Amino acid sequence: MTARNSTVAVLGCGLIGQSWSALFTAYGYDVVAWDPKPQSLSAILDGIARYREQICVRVELPPAVGSFRFAETPEAAVSGAFWVQENAPEVVSVKTKLYSRIEDASGLDTIIASSTSSLTWSQLSPALSRSARFITAHPFNPPHLMPLVEIFAADAEVRESAVSFYAGLGRKPVVLSRDVVGHIANRLASALWREAVNIVAENIADVAAVDAALVHGPGLRWSVVGAHMAYHLGGGRGGIEHYLRHLGPSQEDRWAALGTPRLTADLCARLVEGVLAVANGRSIAELEADRDSRLLKVLAARQTSSR
Amino acid sequence: MTARNSTVAVLGCGLIGQSWSALFTAYGYDVVAWDPKPQSLSAILDGIARYREQICVRVELPPAVGSFRFAETPEAAVSGAFWVQENAPEVVSVKTKLYSRIEDASGLDTIIASSTSSLTWSQLSPALSRSARFITAHPFNPPHLMPLVEIFAADAEVRESAVSFYAGLGRKPVVLSRDVVGHIANRLASALWREAVNIVAENIADVAAVDAALVHGPGLRWSVVGAHMAYHLGGGRGGIEHYLRHLGPSQEDRWAALGTPRLTADLCARLVEGVLAVANGRSIAELEADRDSRLLKVLAARQTSSR
Repeated sequence: MTARNSTVAVLGCGLIGQSWSALFTAYGYDVVAWDPKPQSLSAILDGIARYREQICVRVELPPAVGSFRFAETPEAAVSGAFWVQENAPEVVSVKTKLYSRIEDASGLDTIIASSTSSLTWSQLSPALSRSARFITAHPFNPPHLMPLVEIFAADAEVRESAVSFYAGLGRKPVVLSRDVVGHIANRLASALWREAVNIVAENIADVAAVDAALVHGPGLRWSVVGAHMAYHLGGGRGGIEHYLRHLGPSQEDRWAALGTPRLTADLCARLVEGVLAVANGRSIAELEADRDSRLLKVLAARQTSSR
Repeated sequence: MTARNSTVAVLGCGLIGQSWSALFTAYGYDVVAWDPKPQSLSAILDGIARYREQICVRVELPPAVGSFRFAETPEAAVSGAFWVQENAPEVVSVKTKLYSRIEDASGLDTIIASSTSSLTWSQLSPALSRSARFITAHPFNPPHLMPLVEIFAADAEVRESAVSFYAGLGRKPVVLSRDVVGHIANRLASALWREAVNIVAENIADVAAVDAALVHGPGLRWSVVGAHMAYHLGGGRGGIEHYLRHLGPSQEDRWAALGTPRLTADLCARLVEGVLAVANGRSIAELEADRDSRLLKVLAARQTSSR
């Protein structure tokens, strides 16, 4: 971190905002946060402290944890910040109204990053007069543990600043060439889930079997090798070129045979029943704690790898 | 393992057969193998030894490694075996001809398991007179490291035997209710890859960005939590029921917006170019070794988890 401005504004302190705040402060940044519902103050502070502990057990961090304080207004929160991370509800008008309030209060060089998962740069940027300094920077849940941050920036220099900022937080920034709904990761997740739902709908296997097959099969493999690279390794000595030439047509046939399920009431009931059977009485909080503890172990294991 | 018959026949000693042989012998089973191309004997033995080493670094195994020997014919290989793992080429006629040769030579109780990835039980079983004792048991590549084995068995008792046999080898057996092309895992992988290819085709992001987003985002998460469970955790306190009610319709919209790319020559060339850029000069063997070393670390980390 430079001796210059090290203050980040966090707008919206739900789970995503708390997770970002934990990450920013763990890496030595001072956070000034704003949330329209300040009554939840102690819960927010608890969340940030708990998340920061999870970060600190696995990463060697700067000795000094950054400070955290609340501002009364979004204008006050951004006024001294070099970076703004916005985590408002996923509604265009809510976000754009907020941008109108903060743009004049923030410095000319300040970058405003939206954590939006379901909206796009093109939908949000018209609200700003300095849209070149606005980006989408979508984290993957939970952001303080998952390395991925998906970035779309119209301006090349701002894009580079964003890659360098998030990489400096131990993240893996990935850049989109075009801004699309779902960025990359949620499109991939949605595409996989469509077939995961179809397999249940078609009575091929139940929810537990589908999830187990993913976790002990492709999911496990995709935690170390991407989908394109997996087909390179599946192509034998000839790699992806050989694979595409010999098995490309059969993949197109397979694609055509995949399902397009409709989320009917009956199917939804079966999905709910199947998931609750796997949950086996554990609450969402218990399941999340279990997920995070596994994630921390896998992250630690990957960190000892070559990249 | 019981004091009774502990001999497994492995038919076909390509990479899959070698991988199975490493696993069977590591867990104390004696393997009698047959391969139509016996000239590659030393390469096969090297492969098995190397794979077995990878198993042994992470699992506490029975003290005695099983024996491994070659038989001259498939009939001789199966004659003393209680289990047959068939890894012949993915051609119905090749596999069914082999079944005709071995069925009479094998014991009445012997289970014949096909490792087939792209064929189904219904296509293969008519070749056997005792089809109830025939199953598909599809491992995920590389089988000695990846825990998943996808099982389809028409007979309930045989199905139970198969689950217990593969679980005893440290595998995670998953049972299909219906036999379909691609079982579960390759359908999920194919569904995800369709969109991964589409994202490149639509110039949303390049191969490197897509693979990085997967490995540091959903792939990482799916190594610890399945797709259905992930939406349960994404639904807040209301879980999957809340998610389906409030975001089910937007998922259906998202599904409709996903792509159906055609693997044109131009697109294939871009995929090849993108994968080779990520490979960055590394050979398939080097990339495989890298994948396996990462997989071993992640597997070791998951083993210390609660399940």
